[in-house]
Amino acid sequence: MWLVVLVIYSAWISPLQFAFLTYKKDVLFLVDNIVNGFFAIDLVLTFFVAYLDSQSCLLVDNPKKIAIRYISTWFVFDVSSTAPFQPLSLLFREQSSELGFKLLNMLRLWRLRRVSSLFARLEKDIRFNYFWTRCTKLVSVTLFAVHCAGCFNYLIADRYPDPTRTWIGAVNPNFKEDSLWNRYVTSMYWSITTITTTGYGDLHAENPREMLFDIFYMLFNLGLTSYLIGNMTNLVVHWTSRTRNFRDMFRAASEFATRNQLPPRIQDQMLSHISLKFKTEGLKQQETVNGLPKAIRSSIAHYLFYPIVENTYLFQGVSHDFLFQLVSEMEAEYFSPRADVILQNESPSDLYVLVSGSVNFLSSVDGHDRVVGKATAVDLFGQMGVIYNKPQPFTVRTTELSQILRLSRTSLMNTIQTNGEDGHQIMHNLFMVRE
Amino acid sequence: MWLVVLVIYSAWISPLQFAFLTYKKDVLFLVDNIVNGFFAIDLVLTFFVAYLDSQSCLLVDNPKKIAIRYISTWFVFDVSSTAPFQPLSLLFREQSSELGFKLLNMLRLWRLRRVSSLFARLEKDIRFNYFWTRCTKLVSVTLFAVHCAGCFNYLIADRYPDPTRTWIGAVNPNFKEDSLWNRYVTSMYWSITTITTTGYGDLHAENPREMLFDIFYMLFNLGLTSYLIGNMTNLVVHWTSRTRNFRDMFRAASEFATRNQLPPRIQDQMLSHISLKFKTEGLKQQETVNGLPKAIRSSIAHYLFYPIVENTYLFQGVSHDFLFQLVSEMEAEYFSPRADVILQNESPSDLYVLVSGSVNFLSSVDGHDRVVGKATAVDLFGQMGVIYNKPQPFTVRTTELSQILRLSRTSLMNTIQTNGEDGHQIMHNLFMVRE
Amino acid sequence: MWLVVLVIYSAWISPLQFAFLTYKKDVLFLVDNIVNGFFAIDLVLTFFVAYLDSQSCLLVDNPKKIAIRYISTWFVFDVSSTAPFQPLSLLFREQSSELGFKLLNMLRLWRLRRVSSLFARLEKDIRFNYFWTRCTKLVSVTLFAVHCAGCFNYLIADRYPDPTRTWIGAVNPNFKEDSLWNRYVTSMYWSITTITTTGYGDLHAENPREMLFDIFYMLFNLGLTSYLIGNMTNLVVHWTSRTRNFRDMFRAASEFATRNQLPPRIQDQMLSHISLKFKTEGLKQQETVNGLPKAIRSSIAHYLFYPIVENTYLFQGVSHDFLFQLVSEMEAEYFSPRADVILQNESPSDLYVLVSGSVNFLSSVDGHDRVVGKATAVDLFGQMGVIYNKPQPFTVRTTELSQILRLSRTSLMNTIQTNGEDGHQIMHNLFMVRE
Amino acid sequence: MWLVVLVIYSAWISPLQFAFLTYKKDVLFLVDNIVNGFFAIDLVLTFFVAYLDSQSCLLVDNPKKIAIRYISTWFVFDVSSTAPFQPLSLLFREQSSELGFKLLNMLRLWRLRRVSSLFARLEKDIRFNYFWTRCTKLVSVTLFAVHCAGCFNYLIADRYPDPTRTWIGAVNPNFKEDSLWNRYVTSMYWSITTITTTGYGDLHAENPREMLFDIFYMLFNLGLTSYLIGNMTNLVVHWTSRTRNFRDMFRAASEFATRNQLPPRIQDQMLSHISLKFKTEGLKQQETVNGLPKAIRSSIAHYLFYPIVENTYLFQGVSHDFLFQLVSEMEAEYFSPRADVILQNESPSDLYVLVSGSVNFLSSVDGHDRVVGKATAVDLFGQMGVIYNKPQPFTVRTTELSQILRLSRTSLMNTIQTNGEDGHQIMHNLFMVRE
Repeated sequence: MWLVVLVIYSAWISPLQFAFLTYKKDVLFLVDNIVNGFFAIDLVLTFFVAYLDSQSCLLVDNPKKIAIRYISTWFVFDVSSTAPFQPLSLLFREQSSELGFKLLNMLRLWRLRRVSSLFARLEKDIRFNYFWTRCTKLVSVTLFAVHCAGCFNYLIADRYPDPTRTWIGAVNPNFKEDSLWNRYVTSMYWSITTITTTGYGDLHAENPREMLFDIFYMLFNLGLTSYLIGNMTNLVVHWTSRTRNFRDMFRAASEFATRNQLPPRIQDQMLSHISLKFKTEGLKQQETVNGLPKAIRSSIAHYLFYPIVENTYLFQGVSHDFLFQLVSEMEAEYFSPRADVILQNESPSDLYVLVSGSVNFLSSVDGHDRVVGKATAVDLFGQMGVIYNKPQPFTVRTTELSQILRLSRTSLMNTIQTNGEDGHQIMHNLFMVRE
Repeated sequence: MWLVVLVIYSAWISPLQFAFLTYKKDVLFLVDNIVNGFFAIDLVLTFFVAYLDSQSCLLVDNPKKIAIRYISTWFVFDVSSTAPFQPLSLLFREQSSELGFKLLNMLRLWRLRRVSSLFARLEKDIRFNYFWTRCTKLVSVTLFAVHCAGCFNYLIADRYPDPTRTWIGAVNPNFKEDSLWNRYVTSMYWSITTITTTGYGDLHAENPREMLFDIFYMLFNLGLTSYLIGNMTNLVVHWTSRTRNFRDMFRAASEFATRNQLPPRIQDQMLSHISLKFKTEGLKQQETVNGLPKAIRSSIAHYLFYPIVENTYLFQGVSHDFLFQLVSEMEAEYFSPRADVILQNESPSDLYVLVSGSVNFLSSVDGHDRVVGKATAVDLFGQMGVIYNKPQPFTVRTTELSQILRLSRTSLMNTIQTNGEDGHQIMHNLFMVRE
Repeated sequence: MWLVVLVIYSAWISPLQFAFLTYKKDVLFLVDNIVNGFFAIDLVLTFFVAYLDSQSCLLVDNPKKIAIRYISTWFVFDVSSTAPFQPLSLLFREQSSELGFKLLNMLRLWRLRRVSSLFARLEKDIRFNYFWTRCTKLVSVTLFAVHCAGCFNYLIADRYPDPTRTWIGAVNPNFKEDSLWNRYVTSMYWSITTITTTGYGDLHAENPREMLFDIFYMLFNLGLTSYLIGNMTNLVVHWTSRTRNFRDMFRAASEFATRNQLPPRIQDQMLSHISLKFKTEGLKQQETVNGLPKAIRSSIAHYLFYPIVENTYLFQGVSHDFLFQLVSEMEAEYFSPRADVILQNESPSDLYVLVSGSVNFLSSVDGHDRVVGKATAVDLFGQMGVIYNKPQPFTVRTTELSQILRLSRTSLMNTIQTNGEDGHQIMHNLFMVRE
Repeated sequence: MWLVVLVIYSAWISPLQFAFLTYKKDVLFLVDNIVNGFFAIDLVLTFFVAYLDSQSCLLVDNPKKIAIRYISTWFVFDVSSTAPFQPLSLLFREQSSELGFKLLNMLRLWRLRRVSSLFARLEKDIRFNYFWTRCTKLVSVTLFAVHCAGCFNYLIADRYPDPTRTWIGAVNPNFKEDSLWNRYVTSMYWSITTITTTGYGDLHAENPREMLFDIFYMLFNLGLTSYLIGNMTNLVVHWTSRTRNFRDMFRAASEFATRNQLPPRIQDQMLSHISLKFKTEGLKQQETVNGLPKAIRSSIAHYLFYPIVENTYLFQGVSHDFLFQLVSEMEAEYFSPRADVILQNESPSDLYVLVSGSVNFLSSVDGHDRVVGKATAVDLFGQMGVIYNKPQPFTVRTTELSQILRLSRTSLMNTIQTNGEDGHQIMHNLFMVRE
């Protein structure tokens, strides 16, 4: 992290030194060499840091292998971006080659590789918001481009023989006497005016040299702007996809209800089910969990459902193995308040376990629903229909937000068939309760 | 709603006061304090409004809980955006701190939070068109940015020591004597010229202070423009997705027909089926309905199909339970005019109930189709083949737009198996009719 | 079509007359009234054109219903956009109200509704390329916006009291004496410079009235540009989706081959299969055909496969019904040259009918493949394995591009079971050939 | 390839000659004719190059057919773009028609068709990165547009009667005496300033002729910019889709884990499984392989799994056919270190073959897992449960990254049923090991 701050400092100071400052032994010179020192230390440390082999997914900590890998890849660049060319040159102090040293100094920008790899890491790290990581990256790239272009354009004007025929000199002929701050702000102002394609025209290229630089800068801008917009579009699409999905489903359900003139009760159930689903479940959650290997899914089901199911009266005394196989087949679902879970006379396809919330048992008498019972967590319902294969005797309706486990009749019957004794135990439990 | 109007008024007046107006006891001063009064009332009312607990999905109306929740969140901000700093200051009337009061007045902008949450709500509300909600939001944000930037840029020019070296003074040196309207229009003109990146250049930054403001404004614009375009792309893609989907399917069908040189009759059937499907069904409708829990789907099927099916001769006298189970398995489909529903000699996979429209029964004699019968709503067809498991004896072709229910042979047979008596009744009904 | 040309003419001439021309009895006046005449005829004709009722999908040709529907919707607008206000006004010739008549003339733009509905129709018509239809629409909208803005901006300058303080007068003070062509080109130049956000600044707003117009025009441009880009992105994404899909599948296959070090022979087969699939099949073709109702799919299968299958030796003499049921279950597939259709010793899951192309039968002897037979269209293979349920005795490899029908063993066996006699006939045919 | 270089040279030189240069017998004249010569040779060669018939997918090398096809399509254009009009004209040397020859020379641009078809080919070639191919294409198109517009705009200025009233003359009245380089750079500078919509305004249209050209150029730019942005968005969306997909799945899994408060062990297993899946598998890999015809999939399975499976003790001595059928049904999966493959007491649904890596067998004693065995590649596990249909006796957990083949119980049992003898052999092998 500390290194990233230093890298950002380097990225900012290098073009600035290149364009605006002359080298002399001052505070900046000192700071520069301290920063270089940090990077030199980091360079040495890299020889002692284990790396992850991409082939075998194993961590390599053999110092020789690390050294070979590093020297054969980035070592040369890292050294040349760290070497203190300027102090070395003091031994052969000659003014003429200043521009050369400045160019060598630009090698410092190699350090930006670290920032780039940092962003690549952050994008894959879900603790950080993708949108903001990506935005920060784009803003950084834009600012760096603006900064470099501003500095470089000033350098061209500074070195042009006729100061009045330069982009800055045409407006302010004595610009060289101006303060560093004013010159820097003016450069940045020009640079941003160009990159945003605002192009006021108060500052513009005056000689072929500047025009040539402008041509390349504007071409680069065209690409950068497209890239910015492309990224933003990508982010916006991704960001709004959840809301849009919800709206699409909601609209589909209401259109269906309107066209078929469904009674308000059914319509409400549909819409509140969809709302609840979007509130409780992530977009790809079910899909993701279904894509996991069987053992992991079983572990999850075991952890979540076993303690609940083993306490229901129906499964008292059955073997551990039997219950283990049952819970792997269960699925959890949320029901909004006043939603029907079972309809009276429905064919018995599932057995339900109420995990939380509560339900009413309703029976239709003369066309009116009458409450004939109640169940709260943890309880079973639908078992009579499933085991005796008769139409469900009651409508079951939730009275509050309820979590319910569902076990299909087929799964239950298959498991009972292969575990005969447990089947007897279940029939016994069922019989006990009815008495 | 009334509050939203007041918020918009605040958002517009605050930057304007900040930049253009001096505080004095006039009409505006009065209006301001009345508006503040409304917000103060709203602030008090918030203590009596129940909220929805996000954890338990229940409405909390305990005043103490409401108060704790509000004070621990937005209370401080709401108070500071409502407090009448200016009247308070009249007690210690001192001209020097006017800028300070103006800054405090900018706290009014906190009220925009309400507009933001209003838009978030509207986007999820399907009664409002997503496209226009989103557009309104984007336009509002853009206008607010333009307004603020214009006001602030004017403030900079207004306070600069040398009026002729400001963006507005360079063109019109006596701008301070100009009417408020002219100055405001000029500010807005500059602001919009910059935000749209038109940048005529007739008005441009003249001093470092303005340049610096321009730099930040243009950088902000770059982001805003990308965001606008990203959103618009998102909306356009979403908007045209239905038409594109239709075109893709239509094209796929016609390409298939062309490559295989299908006869025009079949080709017409294919294309009119696809057209009809897109006209009658929403994009995700089938998918959405299939994703609902079984009880809701059964309710829908019961409501829609039960009254129709119970009137068909085949199901006269069968038990309620039996019919209830059957309708849950039925699927409704639309057929365009002159579409084949059953082909002669086809293997009998489904039983059909004609809900609306009419069909002809055709029999192929010497290669020509001859009409041997007719059916109008409500009638059954395909039952002979399904029950006796023989190839269908006739081709069935619609004569007008028809809605038809489909029940698969497997579902029917399974249901009959578990309800023996009803099976006998059906065979009896079938026998009666044949005689 | 002729009307669309007239509409385009109206759209172009109306703003032009509004801004640049004074009304007098000349050629243009005559042309205008002729055009109006055409629209008046069209207005009358509308009363005799049947329309499609959106509810029942039926054509309504009852004149009374047509009249009621038309009068209650667009009639008033159509009349007011056609009425010849100008000739009427000649009766009360007064110069002062010219601007009023010009405004009334702008009602002509209502006719653009026709163009809009034409585009909506074209977009759904697959005979026209979606990309170009959409582009034409966007270009038309842009040109119309540019034209209107240019004309209106000229009007503002023309009517401003001080001609030297207008956008055009600041550059060319005697602009009113200039030719119409020069003034029009200058207006268009300004308008396009602004809409593309180029903003050279050689022509720019000079007075508050023009600034205000510019503000609204630029805000509109911001929206239009976003809309243009959004649409273009949408089109590009849709356009390249086929190529990208192909590349993705191709890349996935080659990555899989590389990682598993598959031998070149298998790799070639994989890649040429994918290439062939993309060449022969549209993107959503299979999906579309599968979504059709069963009867249409059976018709297609019957038309395509029946004549081929009835000529194979195995199905000589079997009943029409039997064959009809078989072909409904068949699927056609293309195989690239040198692709394996059956591998020796594979479990017999499918029966194949060679429709076109040719195949070799290969048997592995000492690890080398030896050609033991050959088949050309129309022939069967894989029948021995399928009927006797033995591993396939030969590898079958195509020698050229071949179309092959596939029939799964399960379907064949089920159909044979329900049609006992045909099963005997098939066994007899098989026995005959072996002898 | 050499031709592409020549085409690019032609594309660059033709507009340049058109605008800036006068024709005379110099080096350029010579180079031009040499280039023409190359294209003439290529034109002749085209008659001897076989082509791929799009209908039959076969290579046609019949010279007559090639000639007919070529002459009936591009021949005329190719000839007219190659013909040396200028040398021919030297026979009738007349100065007046120079512009005519220049226009004829523009026919050279027809050669760009080759570049366009090259890009179309490159886009489908997966050896080249789609992103960079597409970017290169867009940059080429942009540069060509800039070059042409710059040259043409200069030509307009050059031929305008009053040099001071031209876009370049207004700034530099003696521009015609300037060096070619300066004039070219200035033209390019103007062109790029306009295409990027920067529009400084230092160079701008001065007369109607230039305005008209500008109008069309800017309209074209509007389209080009939208097209650039649309393409970039498309590329960015495609590029980031993998990362976004990974993030979405990862987030879904962690949200699920957090909401259900899963213990860290299960959570780790979930997340490391997802990470591994994204590292080892391409995005559409599984889908692509599943879409291949059965014979290719069998070949792949045979090549990959047969040598491994035939060495396991359980399948010693079984027939080749039996094993061949088994491997077609197997699926390979990667497991991260410390992931559960089988849970103790789980119902036996699959048999596993360890291809690489190693696993521990764990048995739960008093709630603690105790290692009771170990297996390294190549070994089987889960066979006891599968063959005797008992709950799995042990938990199997990987100790390092392992590749495991899975064979479902149903497939194994079906294959054993149809191959009785091999079933006995397997039971014998199993019995031998247990003793």
